[in-house]
Amino acid sequence: MSSQTTVAEYLFTRLKQLGVGAIHGVPGDYNLTLLDYVEPSGLTWVGNCNELNAGYAADGYARIKGVGALITTFGVGELSAINAVAGAYAERAAVVHIVGTPTRAAQDGRLLVHHTLNDGDYRRFGLMACHVTVAQTRLVDPRTCAEQIDEVLRQCVLHSRPVYIEVPVDLVAAPVSAERLATKIRIPAPIVTAESEAAMAKVLGKIGAASRPVILVDGESRALGIVDEVQELVKSTGWPTWTTTFGKGLVNETLSNMHGVYRGGFDSEFVKEFWSGADLVLVFGPHFSSTNSYGFSSIPKTEAAICFSDTEIRIGSEIFRDIPAQLAISTVLKHFQSSKAASPYTTYPQLPKDEIIPFSEVSRDGSITQDKLWKLMAGFLQPGDIVFGETGTAGYGVRDMLLPSHTRLWAPITWLSIGYMLPACQGASLAQRELADVNEDNGVKEPRTILFIGDGSFQMTAQELSTIIAHNLNVIIFLINNNGYTIERCIHGLREKYNGVAPWRYLQAPSFFGAKEDVPTATAKSWGELENVLADEKIMNGKGLRMVEVFMDSEDVPTGVLSLMMEKEQVRWKGTGRP
Amino acid sequence: MSSQTTVAEYLFTRLKQLGVGAIHGVPGDYNLTLLDYVEPSGLTWVGNCNELNAGYAADGYARIKGVGALITTFGVGELSAINAVAGAYAERAAVVHIVGTPTRAAQDGRLLVHHTLNDGDYRRFGLMACHVTVAQTRLVDPRTCAEQIDEVLRQCVLHSRPVYIEVPVDLVAAPVSAERLATKIRIPAPIVTAESEAAMAKVLGKIGAASRPVILVDGESRALGIVDEVQELVKSTGWPTWTTTFGKGLVNETLSNMHGVYRGGFDSEFVKEFWSGADLVLVFGPHFSSTNSYGFSSIPKTEAAICFSDTEIRIGSEIFRDIPAQLAISTVLKHFQSSKAASPYTTYPQLPKDEIIPFSEVSRDGSITQDKLWKLMAGFLQPGDIVFGETGTAGYGVRDMLLPSHTRLWAPITWLSIGYMLPACQGASLAQRELADVNEDNGVKEPRTILFIGDGSFQMTAQELSTIIAHNLNVIIFLINNNGYTIERCIHGLREKYNGVAPWRYLQAPSFFGAKEDVPTATAKSWGELENVLADEKIMNGKGLRMVEVFMDSEDVPTGVLSLMMEKEQVRWKGTGRP
Repeated sequence: MSSQTTVAEYLFTRLKQLGVGAIHGVPGDYNLTLLDYVEPSGLTWVGNCNELNAGYAADGYARIKGVGALITTFGVGELSAINAVAGAYAERAAVVHIVGTPTRAAQDGRLLVHHTLNDGDYRRFGLMACHVTVAQTRLVDPRTCAEQIDEVLRQCVLHSRPVYIEVPVDLVAAPVSAERLATKIRIPAPIVTAESEAAMAKVLGKIGAASRPVILVDGESRALGIVDEVQELVKSTGWPTWTTTFGKGLVNETLSNMHGVYRGGFDSEFVKEFWSGADLVLVFGPHFSSTNSYGFSSIPKTEAAICFSDTEIRIGSEIFRDIPAQLAISTVLKHFQSSKAASPYTTYPQLPKDEIIPFSEVSRDGSITQDKLWKLMAGFLQPGDIVFGETGTAGYGVRDMLLPSHTRLWAPITWLSIGYMLPACQGASLAQRELADVNEDNGVKEPRTILFIGDGSFQMTAQELSTIIAHNLNVIIFLINNNGYTIERCIHGLREKYNGVAPWRYLQAPSFFGAKEDVPTATAKSWGELENVLADEKIMNGKGLRMVEVFMDSEDVPTGVLSLMMEKEQVRWKGTGRP
Repeated sequence: MSSQTTVAEYLFTRLKQLGVGAIHGVPGDYNLTLLDYVEPSGLTWVGNCNELNAGYAADGYARIKGVGALITTFGVGELSAINAVAGAYAERAAVVHIVGTPTRAAQDGRLLVHHTLNDGDYRRFGLMACHVTVAQTRLVDPRTCAEQIDEVLRQCVLHSRPVYIEVPVDLVAAPVSAERLATKIRIPAPIVTAESEAAMAKVLGKIGAASRPVILVDGESRALGIVDEVQELVKSTGWPTWTTTFGKGLVNETLSNMHGVYRGGFDSEFVKEFWSGADLVLVFGPHFSSTNSYGFSSIPKTEAAICFSDTEIRIGSEIFRDIPAQLAISTVLKHFQSSKAASPYTTYPQLPKDEIIPFSEVSRDGSITQDKLWKLMAGFLQPGDIVFGETGTAGYGVRDMLLPSHTRLWAPITWLSIGYMLPACQGASLAQRELADVNEDNGVKEPRTILFIGDGSFQMTAQELSTIIAHNLNVIIFLINNNGYTIERCIHGLREKYNGVAPWRYLQAPSFFGAKEDVPTATAKSWGELENVLADEKIMNGKGLRMVEVFMDSEDVPTGVLSLMMEKEQVRWKGTGRP
């Protein structure tokens, strides 16, 4: 390795070392020279249609490959993307947001250049970014650029949260020492202390004493880097295990002791009773937002819970700090690998599992309804699929799908920014392709990404279909045409005009967005039509983009939380006397 | 007026009093009940496809009607829109950004509800908004809501800049006194003081002593509310007058003493010499950003300039504070209305004016080129048109167009967020329709809005075409298909892949976005084809959306700044030896 490199090459080399294979973004005049270095550094450049979409895509990419990256231009570009960055912060996706900024001369001189607020203040956008990133750095001196870059990237990986790097256009090609590149960025290991050992002893004591233990896998497990260990624990203990929506798909759902998503107050009486009898709940990667915890009702009772988080363990109401989940779970695993730890269950309890239903249970002429759609569609998933259920009815529906092994799921968790999932599926699909090392000669096919998305959400970020097309990604879109924001109709305004959307001709999208060849498309208005679509090899096992428009009633929702809300709003609406 | 109303009705009544006729936005679960009050308050609800677009549209609306309004939901919605709000701040559009926030109970309890960062901190988004709004208010107590609303709206109008109002969902219907609504919000009048009189005396002294005075009309004149007075002054003095790009269209360009945009260092030698000989330059609404001032080269020399800004006058290098432009210009006008003030020019100087060129100057078979396009297209404008030249080559081209009277122009000024102009033209077109009081029986036709936009920009926010269609707005779009970001190609990366965009089938847009009837579309690849398009009554004088795709070379740019930059970048590129 040569002893000298440039700021741009240093940054991109570090990203490659962290597993980044592609950078998303949009060109702008303060980042053009930076872009010159992307592909020569061996990274793929994905030019999205706009910066918000690029941010969403980088987030989707990060959740598959661990780290994603986004390049925008100062002011206009970065602010367009900031909602995506906030979402990555809320749900722990490690997105490196690189902003090309004006020259240091312009900044120091407070020049009224374009993309500023015309007041000479260059710091506002960086201050805004502080609210939604875990670390920030502003490169101004070539002598410290390498260390600054390393430190924010370390924070990005360690916390699995977005970071923000400002690169002035006149520093892009500045020389920096390449020496540090010989060593990877050090992600600090957990530190074992007397306190951590005492806490772990307490955890193991609780485990040993439990007679009705359960496991709850939540979604921050991915960010904490403990998914394999959690999988191992679920297998080796054989304990009844549920996930949250956020955790769904991280652990193989086909294991006999996996029971799908725990729905708290909205679950069956039987399951609720079982949970109330549990005397130990091991929670990995807890993320107790309202949506992910069914309005806080699936949060395990304090006295039984042990929560393993990024930096601490909570046992009952006691918090033991500075014990990262990685350290804790490895200790727990070792415990189970010793002979002493046998399951306290003499016979495994009779607990329900998610079901797949066949088309024989629906009438071919019948309208497609969400009470059955999801359990039926689950039969058409394949190992290796990535499944997206966009915020809206789809995001609730996908929770009912029994997933094959090695399947990843996206569903609404906390940020719930509608429009997110189409670009995110572009990023995830690209990341999955990189990981799969596709080689048709060796039989390694490109994995599928399947997006279920409502019409209202689709309209938000529809143009990113063109990026899916341009990069020939293997994506099947099931567009739910129910004439607007049905999830909002459940909440308030059942038949208000404001919950409707303009009627697009959705299946013209591939042609409009520039697909070179005919993209397989289909329409399904009845169960029979849907069955035909799912039997169509070109749609289900073809290549590139495929698109299906599924028509459903504007007041039809999946059974559970949404159907209860819908009933309530329908009663309220009836009371207004309006049609 | 009843003595009691609700927070929502109070707010919307105030907006109506300020001239707002339509609110743009997107529904979200923290603003749904607020939306219940929009149309019953007599306001039009425009549901845009996403919040950034809604923000852009509200900005476009505000620049026509004075004030615009935007409703988004907490977190996801407001952050999606924040780039648009920043643009409104930078270029002084009075946008009232209303955010529906979670209940006060959720906020006080720091509940981890969705659309938060899952950390109980509800203040981050409000803090981010502070950087790009001139006033903010968070409603929490019904006893002070009315006063809080009034104060931020006053700041909004006074400064013509965006403001931010948080309305918790449980306060929407809270009762407030309607008493204040009987009186309009008071916008403070200028205060005459001994200091202001002394400053004005100095101004009048300079005016009296000038032998070669000129006027420069800049774009903040609109925000300062002095456009009519400036128009009057230009007419009554007869002095040679130029505008900046920002000021173009505010004053009738067909007056004999109007000479188009002053291009500073990029203007003709003759004009530059004339400016260097000026001994007085009256500048109204100065906004000296790099783009608006041709890289600062059109800023008048300090010793000759008198600048009239929102709160101060600058005479040479001396600043006199607290003298709003409205006060100053009325004093100047009075001076000219007295007989003493005769023009110092005995014969009017021979100064160039913008030209319109006929199709006879181009060959029917020839490719369309930007050196002639704009002067040619100018012949097809009509009084009352709104013309948009999106950031990119179009934004430079439109500066060459001689505008008919009563024409408004949008061109890149400072914020330069590409994608802005399509939604902004939706907002402006709607505002123009409201102002025009269209009545075909009385011969009052709906004014036209004409958007010139590049393919790269179009891709950013293309879905807002569906809002133009849904509201049947009278918009003609000339889409420049030059295969990507040509303005970036001038700056850096002449033939780099990253400056390209995916090839869409642009003219399929109206059908895809749901147009009920056939939208007139056309393609122009040669001057002859363009001539046919411009002779097509359905396109030029039809109704609703019309769309023309104009093909141009990816390295073709308007003559002037961009052609100089392009030549330089072409030389650099040649030096790299790449094709």
